[in-house]
Amino acid sequence: MPNRLLILSSHADDYLKVLRAASLPDLEMTACESIAQAAQLLQQDFNIIFGEPNLVRSLLPDLKALAWVQATWAGVEPLLAPGLRRDYRLTNVRGVFGPLMSEYVFGYMLAFERRIIQRFVAQKKSIWDNTPPGTLHGKTIGLLGVGSIGGHIAMTAKHFGMSVRGYTLATEDCASIDQYFHEPHLADFARGLNYLVAVLPNTNHTLQMVSREVFDALDSSTVFINVGRGASVDEDALAEALQNNRISGAVLDVFQQEPLPASHKFWNIPNLYITSHTAALSRPADIGPIFVRNYNHFINHESLENIVDFERGY
Amino acid sequence: MPNRLLILSSHADDYLKVLRAASLPDLEMTACESIAQAAQLLQQDFNIIFGEPNLVRSLLPDLKALAWVQATWAGVEPLLAPGLRRDYRLTNVRGVFGPLMSEYVFGYMLAFERRIIQRFVAQKKSIWDNTPPGTLHGKTIGLLGVGSIGGHIAMTAKHFGMSVRGYTLATEDCASIDQYFHEPHLADFARGLNYLVAVLPNTNHTLQMVSREVFDALDSSTVFINVGRGASVDEDALAEALQNNRISGAVLDVFQQEPLPASHKFWNIPNLYITSHTAALSRPADIGPIFVRNYNHFINHESLENIVDFERGY
Repeated sequence: MPNRLLILSSHADDYLKVLRAASLPDLEMTACESIAQAAQLLQQDFNIIFGEPNLVRSLLPDLKALAWVQATWAGVEPLLAPGLRRDYRLTNVRGVFGPLMSEYVFGYMLAFERRIIQRFVAQKKSIWDNTPPGTLHGKTIGLLGVGSIGGHIAMTAKHFGMSVRGYTLATEDCASIDQYFHEPHLADFARGLNYLVAVLPNTNHTLQMVSREVFDALDSSTVFINVGRGASVDEDALAEALQNNRISGAVLDVFQQEPLPASHKFWNIPNLYITSHTAALSRPADIGPIFVRNYNHFINHESLENIVDFERGY
Repeated sequence: MPNRLLILSSHADDYLKVLRAASLPDLEMTACESIAQAAQLLQQDFNIIFGEPNLVRSLLPDLKALAWVQATWAGVEPLLAPGLRRDYRLTNVRGVFGPLMSEYVFGYMLAFERRIIQRFVAQKKSIWDNTPPGTLHGKTIGLLGVGSIGGHIAMTAKHFGMSVRGYTLATEDCASIDQYFHEPHLADFARGLNYLVAVLPNTNHTLQMVSREVFDALDSSTVFINVGRGASVDEDALAEALQNNRISGAVLDVFQQEPLPASHKFWNIPNLYITSHTAALSRPADIGPIFVRNYNHFINHESLENIVDFERGY
């Protein structure tokens, strides 16, 4: 009997094309863009799902033959909630978001240093604004979380001549990190940073990790950037830190509630930049090959790449 | 008799500090921030001038003992005008602007890819703008001029996974350039570029080199960035190319007239960004050591570094 794959994604057709081009053996493929559409087809007894974690979640109880879910995202928290089944293998996406996240982080850090927004505003008034720019060279970046994304950001930071600190549970395996910090030394890690970049997954451990104490430890010139998950930040403490000039700026891609409600105070805080969860979108051309590689492992009874530990949360 | 140095710069005091810290032998130093101040002191028969080319120019006829001018800038065109004396050694600044220029160019290219300005404008209206960003990865940058600055930009471009073309008179010595072009193949060089970056000095040869023909050869999605000199661009052709959507955007640090007059049409062209000649400012901490190195060559009768060829213009 062939494997029966359900592709469940808003880009289902694009994924189908990528997978067809790979001519995978022993595989029947069905592509759905919505849960409603997929729910009609459950009699097909899919044993493999390739899709967006928030969509996959609703079907989870009804997938009787489920053996493996390949998520199209890095963050799989919709599938980790208490009470959800864990009797299948869950794999996520790693290794492809580093370059995209790096472009995001350096785009915004350079926008701060080069005063890109301020010069744009001055230009609207025909003002020759020759305020000297800053430079990343010699500044210090702190990475809260050093997985494959944090490691790539660290490498780019070294290219621009920055000092790089990393905060991890225990690992110290990235060659681009100049100095590692671990629990309980989060405040020491934060002290003296020019840029604090959170690249944390959403787990019990990271909940509100970027707390009032962290903002208090930062310098008034620090810029905070969050490309991980909104739940890892105390949003009230962040708003206060910005409003009281405890820190100098923030760039937020992720929030506790998304889309950010139109009434949220964040929209109007000066020097806070909102990027609406676009830092690293999953593109079928990048993500498809990860499924292909893992499918070949699957049919050869080899261990899959990027297996998520349900307890650890990533 | 000791050497008599005049420091002539708006940062004269900072330069004096850097040079004092170096304890240079056989050297009397005088620091002036203005031509008027310096003109009072010419009886001191300065044989070395370290300063900004536009200020040095006015004193040039009266410096009877002049042997050497170390410019604080890369561009020395104020000292190259026809009729000015050339009976002294002129050295400029090379090698320190690459990293700064690279931060500028990548700051703006990433601002385009990540839609930093557009998202800022959307945020003012509390709009959750999740338009997908672009990426530099796989795009093509063309460098018009590949000296030490162009070479550094090329290196950063490779870090971000770009294809890199270089246009030079003849040299092909930068390892980060994937493909070289030379005269008369400027249009071929321009065709298909995502980003065209001019890093040209102001010489007879580069005058209006970025012409209507170049803009016609570019793709409608190309962004043009000028960090060289304003004289190398046909500004009317550029304005038309932007207004007719022949190209997609421009970032200009330099202009034929600076400061750009408040009435200039450039101020109000959408997708044209003006940065008011701030791309790579001369900082005493970077430039001072160049003088120190060259002074040691000077007193040891060794050849100086970064000698400008008056005929070639750089």
